[in-house]
Amino acid sequence: MSFQSDPNQKVIRNPLFEEKADALKPKIYQETITPNRVVKTITNEDIIHGWEVVPTEDYQQLATQSFGKGESFILDFGQHVVGYVSMNVSPVGSPPDAPLHVRFTFGEMPVEVSEPFSSYDGWISSSWLQEETLHVDVLPNKIKLPRRYSFRYMKVEILDTSQKFNVSFNEVRCQAVTSADVSNVKQLNHEDPLLNKLDEVSIKTLQDCMQDVFEDGPKRDRRLWLGDLRLQALANYVTFKNNDLVKRNLYQFATVPNENGQVTANLFVEPTLIPDDTFLFDYSLFFTTTLFDYYQVTKDKETLVELWGTAYRQIELALERVKDNGIVKDDSSWWSFIDWHPDLNKQGPSQAILIYALKRAINLANELGETEEEAYLTLKVETMTMAAKTHLWNEKAGFFVSGESKQISWATQVWMVLAEVLDKEASRKLLQNLLVEKPEIGMNTPYMYHHLAEALFLTGETEEAIKLLKHYWGGMIKDGADTFWELYNPEDKEFSPYGNHLINSFCHAWSCTPTYLLRTFLDTRQS
Amino acid sequence: MSFQSDPNQKVIRNPLFEEKADALKPKIYQETITPNRVVKTITNEDIIHGWEVVPTEDYQQLATQSFGKGESFILDFGQHVVGYVSMNVSPVGSPPDAPLHVRFTFGEMPVEVSEPFSSYDGWISSSWLQEETLHVDVLPNKIKLPRRYSFRYMKVEILDTSQKFNVSFNEVRCQAVTSADVSNVKQLNHEDPLLNKLDEVSIKTLQDCMQDVFEDGPKRDRRLWLGDLRLQALANYVTFKNNDLVKRNLYQFATVPNENGQVTANLFVEPTLIPDDTFLFDYSLFFTTTLFDYYQVTKDKETLVELWGTAYRQIELALERVKDNGIVKDDSSWWSFIDWHPDLNKQGPSQAILIYALKRAINLANELGETEEEAYLTLKVETMTMAAKTHLWNEKAGFFVSGESKQISWATQVWMVLAEVLDKEASRKLLQNLLVEKPEIGMNTPYMYHHLAEALFLTGETEEAIKLLKHYWGGMIKDGADTFWELYNPEDKEFSPYGNHLINSFCHAWSCTPTYLLRTFLDTRQS
Repeated sequence: MSFQSDPNQKVIRNPLFEEKADALKPKIYQETITPNRVVKTITNEDIIHGWEVVPTEDYQQLATQSFGKGESFILDFGQHVVGYVSMNVSPVGSPPDAPLHVRFTFGEMPVEVSEPFSSYDGWISSSWLQEETLHVDVLPNKIKLPRRYSFRYMKVEILDTSQKFNVSFNEVRCQAVTSADVSNVKQLNHEDPLLNKLDEVSIKTLQDCMQDVFEDGPKRDRRLWLGDLRLQALANYVTFKNNDLVKRNLYQFATVPNENGQVTANLFVEPTLIPDDTFLFDYSLFFTTTLFDYYQVTKDKETLVELWGTAYRQIELALERVKDNGIVKDDSSWWSFIDWHPDLNKQGPSQAILIYALKRAINLANELGETEEEAYLTLKVETMTMAAKTHLWNEKAGFFVSGESKQISWATQVWMVLAEVLDKEASRKLLQNLLVEKPEIGMNTPYMYHHLAEALFLTGETEEAIKLLKHYWGGMIKDGADTFWELYNPEDKEFSPYGNHLINSFCHAWSCTPTYLLRTFLDTRQS
Repeated sequence: MSFQSDPNQKVIRNPLFEEKADALKPKIYQETITPNRVVKTITNEDIIHGWEVVPTEDYQQLATQSFGKGESFILDFGQHVVGYVSMNVSPVGSPPDAPLHVRFTFGEMPVEVSEPFSSYDGWISSSWLQEETLHVDVLPNKIKLPRRYSFRYMKVEILDTSQKFNVSFNEVRCQAVTSADVSNVKQLNHEDPLLNKLDEVSIKTLQDCMQDVFEDGPKRDRRLWLGDLRLQALANYVTFKNNDLVKRNLYQFATVPNENGQVTANLFVEPTLIPDDTFLFDYSLFFTTTLFDYYQVTKDKETLVELWGTAYRQIELALERVKDNGIVKDDSSWWSFIDWHPDLNKQGPSQAILIYALKRAINLANELGETEEEAYLTLKVETMTMAAKTHLWNEKAGFFVSGESKQISWATQVWMVLAEVLDKEASRKLLQNLLVEKPEIGMNTPYMYHHLAEALFLTGETEEAIKLLKHYWGGMIKDGADTFWELYNPEDKEFSPYGNHLINSFCHAWSCTPTYLLRTFLDTRQS
């Protein structure tokens, strides 16, 4: 993501919190993955992005072939991997009398190894496109590519050798890395194989995003966002159970708030811990709700005591945006994320998210015996809930509205349900109405779809929730997902908020939640 | 160079020679070189290759500037350097939310940082064009480029950052490397400043080519060629005096002859010592003459004794090509290098080079008391000399001819003089005739020009020799040479035997000989 920012922000650093976070640096599990076949891609209009993968031979055949200037091949690793690639390259023919000039291109999806990166015209940096061009002076040699890549397909193009030699490749390897302990995960074993598949792909998605921190996407942006962390943590609690990684990431956010005490929307961890200068209304509040979720699972009182100040401060800052009428002030700039949607008004969902966060903060205040804060927050939640019903409810339409234009969006309804602004039955009816009426301002990301699915489960609309999971995340699988994607619009499969789908992330943290939903809301059916 | 070759050659390895060579691995001297200004290049038809360098600011100004997507700058190091480049790169603006994608291009000459490498259409490998494209994930960072470069100009192009940050560079350094001990060199101090300049540029050329071995060119081909070694050794004896490096390189050639005992035209030294599968009539003979030169300077009898077998074998093999009439058999393929000239017939100069080598072999045989070989070689040299005068001399033209077409070339006359086929006075007249008549088959390389200059000095045509040095090597200096070039044709300054001048080497061993010629033939004038 990229938003408005303030490069002159002042950071108030907490060295004690930083020490705690550093001490929780995770163990990295490694696994050696080999390609399983050589493939080519061909155009096919019926396949997403227009590219079909066609096997040409077994990977074992590769070592018997040699390649000269202008020749190339694509290796299919058979699964999504995140890691470090190495291979042996040998000369064939005369002693090599020039360097080998070679380009490697990595694709999570076939399109990335089929369309030239020079065609990329999106607005976020082309530097995320995964490629590496090397000169190899000495042959034979073991090539170790310098960066971590996130991919299933690797294209190798021989830019030049010389007229006197070709090159041959063998022992192509990816040293896959993750901080997820896969041995911790029990199988879902649901009677419906598609739900098992949704669960598996969710877990693989989470696994590949779990590194030194919970990354949003191992291809792009490769860093810790609060909105993603919140959902990853929920999926993690029911799978890998690496609760220390959640704790580490909470301490990292608490280490570097701005001078107002607001936590940033995302963090960089190298060369040192650096907060981004992007602040989002909803993401800052998710610090508080993520701490709440963490405490529910771990009952780690020490962490709660230490991080309560930061959590409470996010609520205070959000409340500063609440007008006298109890409604969050609208704004023309993107201070609240909610979803990737150019026309979405953020007021309604932001109102709901603050109520959602307030309720969790009240619970934490109670746990800590902070009676004064508890009383204050309780008063606020009542005022804001009443205000939402009074000022944002459109009785005739049966929907909550948002902003000056009284926009009716899916996001506002979903978050009002999650915030439990209405009682369960009224919420259920609101969602039923939503699914029938289908307001024009829809949803563009698995992140927003997750919230709809959770809302359906919460209101007892289990069948609808399952249908949604199968249609939406199942649709990604049908379209070739090995891990769940950052962006998916079944009606517009080329959709990218960045102007070009080459830059989309096809393994993205916020899409990993089916495992959380299935394991949380279907637990009675588990074997 | 690239010639016919036999990939199935068998190598007869001599481990004892290899051990000796390995033990002589040279010390590498390092020096830190900083850029001295920021420049741009502009088109200018009056300048070689059409590119003029225009200073824009001091290097010190660079650190105060920042660069975003699509921006670039060129640094001028103020001299030719061979080494390893590093620099600090820092983000400017928001914390960097994407990798830096950056391309570095290195040029010995302005054209290399002005014309896109994608325009290269020559027949030898484009992989020699010096560029590096990197993704830098963590900023700030110290970038250490992975390869050794040979350059004066470095272009830095920002392929992408992001909309949120630019980058700034400082502490740009080149760790220059050479096995030449510059403290060994005495100044020439000639009264003619141009001759001093020719001497200095020669020495710098040799210095930058002296690495782990005597390389032909640090940009391209970066390896040990016998024809270059012979001339580098001569220049080295009167300057750096690293005689052990000559010895090492002789042992390396002697380590890996083919099954006939012929030494290869060039060697690769990594990953292990590997002979190229290219064999040249003249270059193999230069093993013998280089050993002769080495012995003249060092009187290292032990090395002479050990390498005599290899040296003698080269003569034997060359003599196998001599027909009953005493003339070297002509051939349609390029078994003898002589010069980069598409129409040059190689018979005449090859005849002369064999006579030249025979005379030196006779001297070595005498030194070793190998009377039988001495007598045999003496007989051969007499036969071949007589044959040259009988079959190759055109009395009417006053020139030696070559091949079936009786071609009259500069190369044949020059080598006949160097081989002392005629007496000194006749040789002098031959050269005078050559300079007046100017036969059409001329000279294309400093390598061939060196032999003309040496022939002039040897016959007492000192003024003509000096004139040639000033015109030819002085012409390169006038055209912007910091080190002498692989190729230079004053009548066709774009000349390249490779189809494109971007790939030419502008610091080339075989061009470093003015220092040898000046210090050898003008020593009475030295202060």
